[in-house]
Amino acid sequence: MVFLTRRERFNAAHRLYNKEWSDEKNKEVFGKCSNANYHGHNFELFVTVKGLPDPDTGFIVNAHSLSVLLQSEIIDKLDHSNLNLDVDFLKDVLPSSENIVIAIWGVLEKLITDCELHCIKLVETENIFVEYYGPQ
Amino acid sequence: MVFLTRRERFNAAHRLYNKEWSDEKNKEVFGKCSNANYHGHNFELFVTVKGLPDPDTGFIVNAHSLSVLLQSEIIDKLDHSNLNLDVDFLKDVLPSSENIVIAIWGVLEKLITDCELHCIKLVETENIFVEYYGPQ
Amino acid sequence: MVFLTRRERFNAAHRLYNKEWSDEKNKEVFGKCSNANYHGHNFELFVTVKGLPDPDTGFIVNAHSLSVLLQSEIIDKLDHSNLNLDVDFLKDVLPSSENIVIAIWGVLEKLITDCELHCIKLVETENIFVEYYGPQ
Amino acid sequence: MVFLTRRERFNAAHRLYNKEWSDEKNKEVFGKCSNANYHGHNFELFVTVKGLPDPDTGFIVNAHSLSVLLQSEIIDKLDHSNLNLDVDFLKDVLPSSENIVIAIWGVLEKLITDCELHCIKLVETENIFVEYYGPQ
Amino acid sequence: MVFLTRRERFNAAHRLYNKEWSDEKNKEVFGKCSNANYHGHNFELFVTVKGLPDPDTGFIVNAHSLSVLLQSEIIDKLDHSNLNLDVDFLKDVLPSSENIVIAIWGVLEKLITDCELHCIKLVETENIFVEYYGPQ
Amino acid sequence: MVFLTRRERFNAAHRLYNKEWSDEKNKEVFGKCSNANYHGHNFELFVTVKGLPDPDTGFIVNAHSLSVLLQSEIIDKLDHSNLNLDVDFLKDVLPSSENIVIAIWGVLEKLITDCELHCIKLVETENIFVEYYGPQ
Repeated sequence: MVFLTRRERFNAAHRLYNKEWSDEKNKEVFGKCSNANYHGHNFELFVTVKGLPDPDTGFIVNAHSLSVLLQSEIIDKLDHSNLNLDVDFLKDVLPSSENIVIAIWGVLEKLITDCELHCIKLVETENIFVEYYGPQ
Repeated sequence: MVFLTRRERFNAAHRLYNKEWSDEKNKEVFGKCSNANYHGHNFELFVTVKGLPDPDTGFIVNAHSLSVLLQSEIIDKLDHSNLNLDVDFLKDVLPSSENIVIAIWGVLEKLITDCELHCIKLVETENIFVEYYGPQ
Repeated sequence: MVFLTRRERFNAAHRLYNKEWSDEKNKEVFGKCSNANYHGHNFELFVTVKGLPDPDTGFIVNAHSLSVLLQSEIIDKLDHSNLNLDVDFLKDVLPSSENIVIAIWGVLEKLITDCELHCIKLVETENIFVEYYGPQ
Repeated sequence: MVFLTRRERFNAAHRLYNKEWSDEKNKEVFGKCSNANYHGHNFELFVTVKGLPDPDTGFIVNAHSLSVLLQSEIIDKLDHSNLNLDVDFLKDVLPSSENIVIAIWGVLEKLITDCELHCIKLVETENIFVEYYGPQ
Repeated sequence: MVFLTRRERFNAAHRLYNKEWSDEKNKEVFGKCSNANYHGHNFELFVTVKGLPDPDTGFIVNAHSLSVLLQSEIIDKLDHSNLNLDVDFLKDVLPSSENIVIAIWGVLEKLITDCELHCIKLVETENIFVEYYGPQ
Repeated sequence: MVFLTRRERFNAAHRLYNKEWSDEKNKEVFGKCSNANYHGHNFELFVTVKGLPDPDTGFIVNAHSLSVLLQSEIIDKLDHSNLNLDVDFLKDVLPSSENIVIAIWGVLEKLITDCELHCIKLVETENIFVEYYGPQ
């Protein structure tokens, strides 16, 4: 088994906000991350797949094809978007990094078929990132 | 003369939007950067000052004091904000990176007095940054 | 399970030195790392925790609260310190990166209670880092 | 168990090319990566070993000795080389990143004896890397 | 005046080789950089332009348009190429980083017309880069 | 004129301390940077030289030769040292980053003769760096 990781990037706005709660409760729990007018990040997405290298190509997956898939199915929807308002696969999802990686896993596990999806990593700032290895 | 640079960071939402123009014209000129629901970035701000080192301290400026100033006057206002809506010194400014560095220079040149402000650099993504050395 | 990692930094002096050995033996084994007057590093500490996201917050842990804990219990003691002389939880520990991550694990495992401590990673230089996943 | 990772770097040329295929087929599968005159990369190699810290040194391995070994057995052969033509342990190997990490594992597993080889990671660009944990 | 910098990347092979010299002389002067089978790099290109922000857009140049120009005129020719053999604007140029930035300046100064070309920077490795501000 | 920059690194301990002052005054001015037992950094040194490329080599300077010079004259003295105690060219110098770059300039300007020394840059942390262009 070899693991291959492809990095993609997207720039998006979001806020942490629980619709069930008052604005005060949101502010108390999420602090400035709940700013009503949003804030944003340069997110980095790392998608790791695993498999055996094909003897003819040396590839577990064509990294360029993987990038094309990630662009069309994930990045085109997230880049220059508002994660609370604009993204179909995040509808009704509180867009914490934890919830975003679970949602991305849900999209990709059906689309990656010639090798195995291993990990979704999302870097929110240089100081915080999350990783998800799927439901187990 | 020695030049000292201090880096600070802020995470903010913005959109590129000229109020004088139709939405179509904004979309034509700014593309996805004009998304009505905003997008965002992890901005990096580099402030460079210059001066002669003080013989007693070896400092042209106390970098900790400079950071405290930048935090209170610049970063506290920009971090987790919406650059189109929330920032006093960006009121009526189209928040392109070019316009933001000019606005930050305007704030800081009055506040930095024991050494000389030299450059404001703003990194928007890993691929784009701007620099401003003041009006000349 | 989602994994969340928080990065903190500290700048510290240390030397590699076994008190049981002669200076010659220390020099032979540790080379310039045993310099009697110390050397130092900008250490980067990555603390990874794991858990299930809270349905109300989307968090496995509030990353800001985690950072406050790491600052008060770990970083305030290590930053601008001498790792051989100044740190209570490193008393009588030869401060190799391997021993430091084990010691930090010992401090944190008692303090992190609402999610599970998963990994302590310490980056000593751009070319060397260590990782510890706890006693097993 | 503590894991220690050492980074080394090498700058090399390569092309992706299957000798059994026509040039057209190679171009179709590998695109510009099959350019007959080669292209190249600044590769980053991360070698991770694991073990228990020696009570006398605090080391699972002397990182300097590990680096000397990696330089003489791996980097001196790869650096400023053509991976298709110049490297003994890549003879008859299609030099994809996947195949390179497997080949490096083959060389190192015999040479690393006082601790255990855990992972070979190769970073090809800022957007693509592969990892190999050995045959299992 | 505001300065805007756009980063682009290309992966290429090259060798340092003076055709007027013997192989021995080339090896003596250029060392392993003269390897007959080439080596390669992940080059990073930083192009800096300067100008006054347009009051309507806040831009000194549309960074996306600049990137499209750099891709078509520079990167498409350099990426996955051999700098000694494949690039029209490097014909008969010894492809040292110094000579490459001068050649890129020559291409771009004619093409960048709505603002002013200021600097071409080329990063060859994490330890070496060159900068050129044009003939003066 | 082309500018070439070479990066070197050194890991060192230091403290900010003015011998003319009381410990209290030192603590008041320098804070935790005056810790009696020292702290330390992974310093990055960028040395920039300028000149015209040699028509035979394409070099303004052989970057490898420059690195050998920097290693023997600067890095071997600074690496794994205590900047307050161990370095001949920092004797009686309060080792602030500002004073260190001036001292390194003093050493190098006599040694760099076949091209011109342009700038000494010292990165102390990811948030602070200084630059010196010589006495003017």
